[in-house]
Amino acid sequence: LISCPDRPGIIAAVSQFLFARGANIVHSDQHSTGGAGDDFYMRIEFDLPDLAAREAAFGAEFAPVAARFEMDWRLALGSREKRLAVFVSKEEHCLLELFWRRSAGELPAEIVAIISNHRDLEALARAHGVPFHWVPLAAPTDKPAAEARQVEIVEAARADAVVLARYMQILSPSFVARFPRRIVNIHHGFLPAFVGPRPYEQAHERGVKLIGATAHYVTEDLDAGPIIEQDVARVDHRHAPAVLRRIGRHIERQVLARAVAWHADDRVIVHGNRTVVFS
Amino acid sequence: LISCPDRPGIIAAVSQFLFARGANIVHSDQHSTGGAGDDFYMRIEFDLPDLAAREAAFGAEFAPVAARFEMDWRLALGSREKRLAVFVSKEEHCLLELFWRRSAGELPAEIVAIISNHRDLEALARAHGVPFHWVPLAAPTDKPAAEARQVEIVEAARADAVVLARYMQILSPSFVARFPRRIVNIHHGFLPAFVGPRPYEQAHERGVKLIGATAHYVTEDLDAGPIIEQDVARVDHRHAPAVLRRIGRHIERQVLARAVAWHADDRVIVHGNRTVVFS
Amino acid sequence: LISCPDRPGIIAAVSQFLFARGANIVHSDQHSTGGAGDDFYMRIEFDLPDLAAREAAFGAEFAPVAARFEMDWRLALGSREKRLAVFVSKEEHCLLELFWRRSAGELPAEIVAIISNHRDLEALARAHGVPFHWVPLAAPTDKPAAEARQVEIVEAARADAVVLARYMQILSPSFVARFPRRIVNIHHGFLPAFVGPRPYEQAHERGVKLIGATAHYVTEDLDAGPIIEQDVARVDHRHAPAVLRRIGRHIERQVLARAVAWHADDRVIVHGNRTVVFS
Amino acid sequence: LISCPDRPGIIAAVSQFLFARGANIVHSDQHSTGGAGDDFYMRIEFDLPDLAAREAAFGAEFAPVAARFEMDWRLALGSREKRLAVFVSKEEHCLLELFWRRSAGELPAEIVAIISNHRDLEALARAHGVPFHWVPLAAPTDKPAAEARQVEIVEAARADAVVLARYMQILSPSFVARFPRRIVNIHHGFLPAFVGPRPYEQAHERGVKLIGATAHYVTEDLDAGPIIEQDVARVDHRHAPAVLRRIGRHIERQVLARAVAWHADDRVIVHGNRTVVFS
Repeated sequence: LISCPDRPGIIAAVSQFLFARGANIVHSDQHSTGGAGDDFYMRIEFDLPDLAAREAAFGAEFAPVAARFEMDWRLALGSREKRLAVFVSKEEHCLLELFWRRSAGELPAEIVAIISNHRDLEALARAHGVPFHWVPLAAPTDKPAAEARQVEIVEAARADAVVLARYMQILSPSFVARFPRRIVNIHHGFLPAFVGPRPYEQAHERGVKLIGATAHYVTEDLDAGPIIEQDVARVDHRHAPAVLRRIGRHIERQVLARAVAWHADDRVIVHGNRTVVFS
Repeated sequence: LISCPDRPGIIAAVSQFLFARGANIVHSDQHSTGGAGDDFYMRIEFDLPDLAAREAAFGAEFAPVAARFEMDWRLALGSREKRLAVFVSKEEHCLLELFWRRSAGELPAEIVAIISNHRDLEALARAHGVPFHWVPLAAPTDKPAAEARQVEIVEAARADAVVLARYMQILSPSFVARFPRRIVNIHHGFLPAFVGPRPYEQAHERGVKLIGATAHYVTEDLDAGPIIEQDVARVDHRHAPAVLRRIGRHIERQVLARAVAWHADDRVIVHGNRTVVFS
Repeated sequence: LISCPDRPGIIAAVSQFLFARGANIVHSDQHSTGGAGDDFYMRIEFDLPDLAAREAAFGAEFAPVAARFEMDWRLALGSREKRLAVFVSKEEHCLLELFWRRSAGELPAEIVAIISNHRDLEALARAHGVPFHWVPLAAPTDKPAAEARQVEIVEAARADAVVLARYMQILSPSFVARFPRRIVNIHHGFLPAFVGPRPYEQAHERGVKLIGATAHYVTEDLDAGPIIEQDVARVDHRHAPAVLRRIGRHIERQVLARAVAWHADDRVIVHGNRTVVFS
Repeated sequence: LISCPDRPGIIAAVSQFLFARGANIVHSDQHSTGGAGDDFYMRIEFDLPDLAAREAAFGAEFAPVAARFEMDWRLALGSREKRLAVFVSKEEHCLLELFWRRSAGELPAEIVAIISNHRDLEALARAHGVPFHWVPLAAPTDKPAAEARQVEIVEAARADAVVLARYMQILSPSFVARFPRRIVNIHHGFLPAFVGPRPYEQAHERGVKLIGATAHYVTEDLDAGPIIEQDVARVDHRHAPAVLRRIGRHIERQVLARAVAWHADDRVIVHGNRTVVFS
């Protein structure tokens, strides 16, 4: 994954570099923002048999190319699966979808820890052989201690990313700062409409004809981080808020699962408050 | 079209009333909001050969039924087409779509006047044989006089409804009050997100993955009236604001055309700030 | 649920009948096919507290109304849930979706038996507390005996309907005849395109830009029974047949689950080889 | 546009070639079919100020690169717009959409001739300043002479492509062979379902829940050529064939317009009976 100022010759230099080392480019995507002061984004997926062994050397060799084009770059080994810590509350649909996609071969990541302030999903976690960590939150004053415990768990599990799969608590800025661009949340509304709690009630009140869900990276500002994926479903006057919530669950689980799979597959580049998704 | 408090026996009473008069129910739709203090909405489309001739008598006969159930009701003759005054600015796509649907037999309404502050669409209006009224707006201080002129035109044309087909001006509260629930606007954003001008720029800035358009009745609050129809299209990082505008035009024209057709066909009941659409 | 020749007065007669007995109509849907020799279809959902107790009497009282309009009708108690026998093979996604929707309150039916020619999903069935019946099919000659066993299981479980949730075997005409309009199958293609086995390979071969799935009632003709629900997803040249299958699974599980829920909720009327779905 | 057997080094060679000549790559897309005996497809859009002047030289210089990788390649100048001959019959919606997209800046092609066996759309063609050619077809025996006349018109207009915008006649193999991969047709059904005439009646008869339209290149086999684009809309039991036709028109015009724009923008590569669309 490469981000850099746009300039002629980037693709030639990178593809030449890879070719010279015997790599076969499997897939390559580029995006240039256009206009003056352009940004250029690139994702190259290539095959190089012994890359795992000589990862460090490869990086050192690429450094001059990167320096020439002022690249911000990152190499991810396809053979090294991401490790996910999933935060949940009482609702199972998002977690269930992640488990199902994992077992169906659609989620290139391992779920290494489930963390919740409720015990409702403990049996589900255990049935899938994933450690379940109950971190109760009886009072707001427990939050700092609870977050400290959560950080411990995430780090002990060597998780690369945190997934908020309908975890109904707001994380503190210090927690968020610890995992920059590595916390994926599902918001049960079509952002930027219906920020905050009870989006289905808000949607019903406003009388919208479509409801949606939004997967985004968590930043300090509530529900304002870079959007990874969104989707909607049609609703009408017959749907009470309870029905909207039910319809919404189907959107939420699919939007979150797609976003997590793209993140796990290194298909998302964050650019300011937007994302470039090479899906 | 009937709105009233929900109570057993409404359907029986109304269908009995129609049957006794020889009417054949072609289509019937009901909706009850449920819960205590329910509202009940009903649309019955029926065939009664000589209804046009005895419309007044029919109404007088129905009055006792309506009184018994505290109905707010309205009878619209399918044979009497709505008359539309369409306000436009410089962009043609929405007006063109209305003309096309009209000629394709999909819009049960006659376009009787085109009003604009620009002359760009004059030729298009004339090509379709519709009077074009240029009401320029050089300065904000011209607005009261311009609106007075617009009201005159709408009333002289005996228009039943006003359609804002990408008319880029804000109407005054007094204009809006003159045509309650009879002004349909197309907003080029997915309300309630992106209220106000430049919604595509806002959408691009926020990095959304879907853009939308919203047709709604105009009320005093800008972009806050009852929503009739909405739709969205998928976009991605490659789309600059200019491309979003282009994609958005396709959504706008279709959403507005559907909303206008439903309004013209008496399929929309406004209920507080929401609509019941029997589509 | 009522089907009969269209004629004035049906709605009046039925709603009058219900009102006289103190029933409150919760929802009512009608459909007339139009034209000479019309058919009329109606679904009325009503609330009548002691209906379960006097179901037989209610039927006897309605008989004259039904006779007058030559109605084919059926009364289903909302309080009496349908019982489903689900046939599966090796793939879990459809069964898992049915389980999930059941636990999420979205499927008004009880799964009372799982029948399979493979043991792959035995653990999943047991985890949900549903009896699993392994009916192996080593050779085509086993089929008659296997079907006899399947009929026994279905009847012993007092199942009202059979759901083929990616059961990869063709049922014999005599099995099908035993459960008319009560066997729901999911076909992994957009019928009537891609009848028969390997529809994703066929779709890839033909280079379609959308793939789909179809839920239908099973009749003697393979993949030709009345369609209940269909949906599609966009695909492109990058998708090999294996990826189409993966994308297809998401469509299959949702289409089947919606169709089964509508069937279980008595929202489907079969009319020749078509369905009227009051969704 | 490049098609060739897949092999390491193609991207490096091409991007190096372009960089050495001062070209700036604006956009680049690749696709490899995977597996043994892979095919590789590539579309590179680049900026090279004086390319129009030295087009021939550029080709000669690229020849050795092309030879090395056994490339089938083609260079199209973005500044040189495609010229379209549009065949129509009586229905205007597809032609109107092409005109509208053209004037909205969404169709990078000039419409240089309208050919029809009816005079219904003559006024529309003239209103847009495009020559209209009436080539009547009174009897099947007129066909050879009519086609000869059509070829004359297309060639005199120096059209690069033929668009069948609801032209209801079948073209002869010899006509088709004259413009290989350069005739785009809109079929009013979701191919491969509902081949042939009256697809909406077929769809209604079969009771499908979605109807569609398909844009494809015309080959000798009726409705069997490479598919460029497809889309669908949801329908239900209420929709008679006449309504399906009406809904279908909205799909047809959009699917055809997208396909023609991609063809005109050199975004489609035909590969056997499938297409690679770099949209």
